[in-house]
Amino acid sequence: MARISYVNGSYVHHQEAVVDVEDRGYQFADGIYEYIAFYNRTLLDGELHLRRLERSLNELRIEMPVSMTAMMLIIRELIVRNSREDGGLYIQVTRGVAKRDHPFPKKIRPVLVMTVCGPKTPKPHEVKDGVAVITTADIRWGRCDIKSVSLLANVLAKQKATEQKARESILVRDDRSVTEGAVSNAYIITDKGVLVTHGLDEKVLGGITRDVVLRLARKAGISVEERSFNSVEMNSAAEAFITSTSANILPVVKIDGKAVGSGKPGPVTRKLQELYLTYIFKQTGRML
Amino acid sequence: MARISYVNGSYVHHQEAVVDVEDRGYQFADGIYEYIAFYNRTLLDGELHLRRLERSLNELRIEMPVSMTAMMLIIRELIVRNSREDGGLYIQVTRGVAKRDHPFPKKIRPVLVMTVCGPKTPKPHEVKDGVAVITTADIRWGRCDIKSVSLLANVLAKQKATEQKARESILVRDDRSVTEGAVSNAYIITDKGVLVTHGLDEKVLGGITRDVVLRLARKAGISVEERSFNSVEMNSAAEAFITSTSANILPVVKIDGKAVGSGKPGPVTRKLQELYLTYIFKQTGRML
Repeated sequence: MARISYVNGSYVHHQEAVVDVEDRGYQFADGIYEYIAFYNRTLLDGELHLRRLERSLNELRIEMPVSMTAMMLIIRELIVRNSREDGGLYIQVTRGVAKRDHPFPKKIRPVLVMTVCGPKTPKPHEVKDGVAVITTADIRWGRCDIKSVSLLANVLAKQKATEQKARESILVRDDRSVTEGAVSNAYIITDKGVLVTHGLDEKVLGGITRDVVLRLARKAGISVEERSFNSVEMNSAAEAFITSTSANILPVVKIDGKAVGSGKPGPVTRKLQELYLTYIFKQTGRML
Repeated sequence: MARISYVNGSYVHHQEAVVDVEDRGYQFADGIYEYIAFYNRTLLDGELHLRRLERSLNELRIEMPVSMTAMMLIIRELIVRNSREDGGLYIQVTRGVAKRDHPFPKKIRPVLVMTVCGPKTPKPHEVKDGVAVITTADIRWGRCDIKSVSLLANVLAKQKATEQKARESILVRDDRSVTEGAVSNAYIITDKGVLVTHGLDEKVLGGITRDVVLRLARKAGISVEERSFNSVEMNSAAEAFITSTSANILPVVKIDGKAVGSGKPGPVTRKLQELYLTYIFKQTGRML
């Protein structure tokens, strides 16, 4: 099965998918991205992802490379050409190609790249038994709400987790407040059963899975607080979990080697996992 | 005159200089760079730049793509092929190409790209009359000592300056301390004639021009303090200037619309400009 990618107007064999060395995405991390899961060739929350893509571009004053309608057509075509039922779609938009100079070039056209990969769903034992995480200093820049490709801090944090055989690094600021994971949003359940996660501001990415999970939680009668919490509160939480497009909902059962609550996935997390799988099924017809 | 670039082992026409869309430089800003000026085909402080390149790679645990000797041979060949006497050499090294996933891939080879451009020396009136700068919040990540391509915060800061017809954005942290410029190091001269610039730590890039200028200053008997200073101290300074590989030394005569000192380049800055031009001449034979 050939892997086909899309680069600025052309569908090409993946090994021929290239960009200019003076693409500002390459030289300045001057671009944004989205990663969208698809099941049965149906994007999961495609509209929410594309709306966020548009928001990220607006924040950086990069034009939409094609209309939203064209974007949807390209995505559908690319999924078909890759002959995949389930998988992941990666979209990157950069400011474009220009002679290297920091300020926005006057005349420039954005570059649109899309690639498709196999599904990245978590391992069954991670979903069932939960995962271990570590905490790491949050040294990212001040606009984490923009889904930019300026991801080096995230890479280093995730690498640190991997080396310690943990699934994720939970990022903690100097004031001890927990923002989110290197590649996920982070949540705790207090001993009163309240779901707490960092509010939406420039310190965290507004995750699509986060958005859906909070809606599902509220609908199920779970109290939700979107506010800052610190590492002390996290370490004494009844339950904890992380969410992302590729992790869905993963119970966190260990933080820096210490058990969270009972050391096993808790009832609120379990409930949300169930609700989320049903949500995916309703939208795509795929029961994970 | 054809523009020739170097990409991973090949000298190619610049319009054919491309990298894989899954190069981690493109998707994660997982790479570093150097920009070196050359005059009479001689690199200015080439060794210092290449030593810094090696340091940046070490910090990110990216291997040197080729030996230092090979690097020097490629550079010389590229400058000759571009038939330029004076100009700028841009070197970028990324972790390499791999299926998109945050942690460092196990088997990966770094990608080396070099391009050459015309000289970027500042305009004569900037050198003579000085430049205006603005101050902007420093929202960069916590490892500014690594010369990484994770430059989106710098791009936004420099863009802001450009829109306000200023040469540079001087970056100020929440505690009001001044770190450096978006693309330069920043200095003040106190009313006692002391040269002050931020010390070397993770908040600033160890500029090569900074290194040379501090050495020249000390040799000329100017007192140097490498320490943090705040925006209040900067606004009441006798003189101010910025340095970078493309700016050399530029007097700062206006900060956020207000005159620095007399509003004209001061004697210490002038002295350092002279010393630096002599330094360039001695090394490259070019009198700017």
